[in-house]
Amino acid sequence: MQFVLLSGGSGKRLWPLSNDVRSKQFIKIFDKADGTGRESMIQRIYDGLKRSCGRGVGITISTSRTQVSSVRSQLGDVDMCVEPCRRDTFPAIALASAYLADVKHVAEDEPVVVFPVDPYVDESYFEALGSLAAPLEPGASGAPQLVLMGIKPTYPSAKYGYIMPKVKLGEGYFTVDSFKEKPDEGTAATYIEQGALWNGGVFAFRLGWLLDVARRELGSARYEELLTRYDELPKISFDYAVVEKTKDIQMMMYSGTWKDLGSWNTLTEAMTEPSIGKAIMQGCERTHVVNELDIPVIAMGLEDTVVAASPEGVLVADKHQSSFLKPLAERIHQEIMVQEKSWGSYRVIDVGAESLTVRVTLLAGHAMSYHSHERRDEAWTIIEGEGTAEIDGVSRDAGVGDTIRLPVGSRHRLTAKTRLVAIEVQTGRDIDVDDKTVWAR
Amino acid sequence: MQFVLLSGGSGKRLWPLSNDVRSKQFIKIFDKADGTGRESMIQRIYDGLKRSCGRGVGITISTSRTQVSSVRSQLGDVDMCVEPCRRDTFPAIALASAYLADVKHVAEDEPVVVFPVDPYVDESYFEALGSLAAPLEPGASGAPQLVLMGIKPTYPSAKYGYIMPKVKLGEGYFTVDSFKEKPDEGTAATYIEQGALWNGGVFAFRLGWLLDVARRELGSARYEELLTRYDELPKISFDYAVVEKTKDIQMMMYSGTWKDLGSWNTLTEAMTEPSIGKAIMQGCERTHVVNELDIPVIAMGLEDTVVAASPEGVLVADKHQSSFLKPLAERIHQEIMVQEKSWGSYRVIDVGAESLTVRVTLLAGHAMSYHSHERRDEAWTIIEGEGTAEIDGVSRDAGVGDTIRLPVGSRHRLTAKTRLVAIEVQTGRDIDVDDKTVWAR
Repeated sequence: MQFVLLSGGSGKRLWPLSNDVRSKQFIKIFDKADGTGRESMIQRIYDGLKRSCGRGVGITISTSRTQVSSVRSQLGDVDMCVEPCRRDTFPAIALASAYLADVKHVAEDEPVVVFPVDPYVDESYFEALGSLAAPLEPGASGAPQLVLMGIKPTYPSAKYGYIMPKVKLGEGYFTVDSFKEKPDEGTAATYIEQGALWNGGVFAFRLGWLLDVARRELGSARYEELLTRYDELPKISFDYAVVEKTKDIQMMMYSGTWKDLGSWNTLTEAMTEPSIGKAIMQGCERTHVVNELDIPVIAMGLEDTVVAASPEGVLVADKHQSSFLKPLAERIHQEIMVQEKSWGSYRVIDVGAESLTVRVTLLAGHAMSYHSHERRDEAWTIIEGEGTAEIDGVSRDAGVGDTIRLPVGSRHRLTAKTRLVAIEVQTGRDIDVDDKTVWAR
Repeated sequence: MQFVLLSGGSGKRLWPLSNDVRSKQFIKIFDKADGTGRESMIQRIYDGLKRSCGRGVGITISTSRTQVSSVRSQLGDVDMCVEPCRRDTFPAIALASAYLADVKHVAEDEPVVVFPVDPYVDESYFEALGSLAAPLEPGASGAPQLVLMGIKPTYPSAKYGYIMPKVKLGEGYFTVDSFKEKPDEGTAATYIEQGALWNGGVFAFRLGWLLDVARRELGSARYEELLTRYDELPKISFDYAVVEKTKDIQMMMYSGTWKDLGSWNTLTEAMTEPSIGKAIMQGCERTHVVNELDIPVIAMGLEDTVVAASPEGVLVADKHQSSFLKPLAERIHQEIMVQEKSWGSYRVIDVGAESLTVRVTLLAGHAMSYHSHERRDEAWTIIEGEGTAEIDGVSRDAGVGDTIRLPVGSRHRLTAKTRLVAIEVQTGRDIDVDDKTVWAR
């Protein structure tokens, strides 16, 4: 069995902790089961799946270029199918299926389970994911083309599509009568009375079937070809492009925890403590503080409020109002102030008119790419650890207190022996992240 | 006539904008009268006094060592009498009086008006200050020893002492019946019904009289001697030590604006706009945002709330609760993150385990002291402007992109030709502001 985790989305619903490069699934906000710290939604889902499903199961992360560094940083060296640009879920699932066939050489009769990485779930979800493809296992009689997970609604939400079940097939499986697009809340309540379930975007199919669909709808099911032509593929969801046109569909009901943590109001419901990070709270009720800054937050006498602080900014919002955050946060245009990289992380600590100062952290044994800039000088001062600095082909040791100048045009790289931290001061008239030529990785 | 402005106090009632080195009177929160930006309380009071009183009037700032840089930065090259350590108002006023006599050579019959720099006042206050010493002018008949300003109460406050007037002398002047220590609110209401006024710590006397008091109570009225013995002087207020023992006192009534802006609740009342700094507000009522950070604050759906953000931290408080801030803010122990200096300013932008990174700004034509450190290396990278770097007696030009290493023990100084900004990276096991030997100013 193959699992494909869709790690998409980006945006500002959880600003200042989410932004154009950090989606909500990367925010480390949940207590780890073993009490050793905090983990993100993607770590929770990935680890839960590995723990629950055991050997013989393949896991692939389908994601976009902007998230590759975050995925590597949080999950390590995992299989990834990377979209060259943003399309919608149908092209992403087609590309991931072609990747399974052409790169991982998965057999065409093997079941594939595709699901989004961002809902908040409990352990029973991983068992349900394991059961979803049961009707598709080799030898299963009367196998459908597609199996969907129907999620038992907890309230009449206008945010989801609904699935109407038709005939019970036993043990939680049903045939499907019809699909309903996102309704208003009143209509949603009626649907729920009639037995409708949420469509959570969790699908299972046999790999060969999806490759046939891709050939028919997209003209190809070859990985390299889809990759090359990706920007020409239609922006269309899997629901519209595939589900609604497929007749032979079953649905499996899931009744465990399944929450969309897409706003601060819902995200804070999943916090086990009122604050994360440096915070002092007094006389607050139903209030949460998430502080990723090095400086403290004091919260006094607040009710139903969320305070979130990061190097990107500070949010203070009434929890119910927080769902209207996105358009406000989208008014803000600034540098990406903090970013996880496969080799470590960087954080902007000062923005000048013609300068940028950054704290660069390299993990032990990692190196940045060998690169140069055309329009800026740089200087590193090492503040922690040991490593090597390579400049125009010449290597030298780099340790605490060393200052290394990197003039315009010089090719350079830092390699960390231990964890290595440097203050990088960039100076120039036209500082831009895109002014970077990579000579070697 | 001489004015002595008492610029004392420090503390955390207005954290994170006030701290151990920045008192509330230095927070730039008020719109300038000419609309060219914002000014602090000390700037407002100093400029108002100069504008209102004209020539022939001397102004001296009585302050503590920790505030000298802030005073120079905000007021420029003004007369200052600097307390070597913190005592209370009687030693401070005695020292300032000795300074007027011995350093400024003020005549003993000249009237002196002493007042605190931190109340929020309107223009009529400056006229009142000018009138306070009228009974003390040379040739005035029946001159008292002391004239106090009695402030017409706007509510029964438990924060002030009260002055009971006795006999009206005409045109707002009274003799004094008695003084009442800070009462509870019920007692305060009774006092006000009986005609009591607030004692705002505004006093006028003839210089010679105060010098006599100093000789009697402190054993000396010589500036140099008081300065040398300052740490032995008693911690006692002018009210206890002098006012309550003086019989020949008059009071002048002041009915204009006079507010203590000592908590966020009262300070925000004086703001003309709901926000200062980068802020986006939506659906907020009776809410103020003061943001000194470079990153934005979003406030949504808040009521009666103050949000204050600075490099020291972030406060989010119900306005009424904000008066209980001090003990919470005192729990926080960290570096002073931002400080105004006579030559410019510095701001801590990164704190490492064995490093500190600081943005240093020098005003055009200014220089830092020529100094060295015993336990840290430093490196400067210039990010703005032009100047000179002097290291162990050798000077060199310093411009944008230049990196200058300052090893342990080296004597060094930056001098600014234009406004000059440098990123200073300090590395060492034991970084401490006190590790600084000054060789020349």
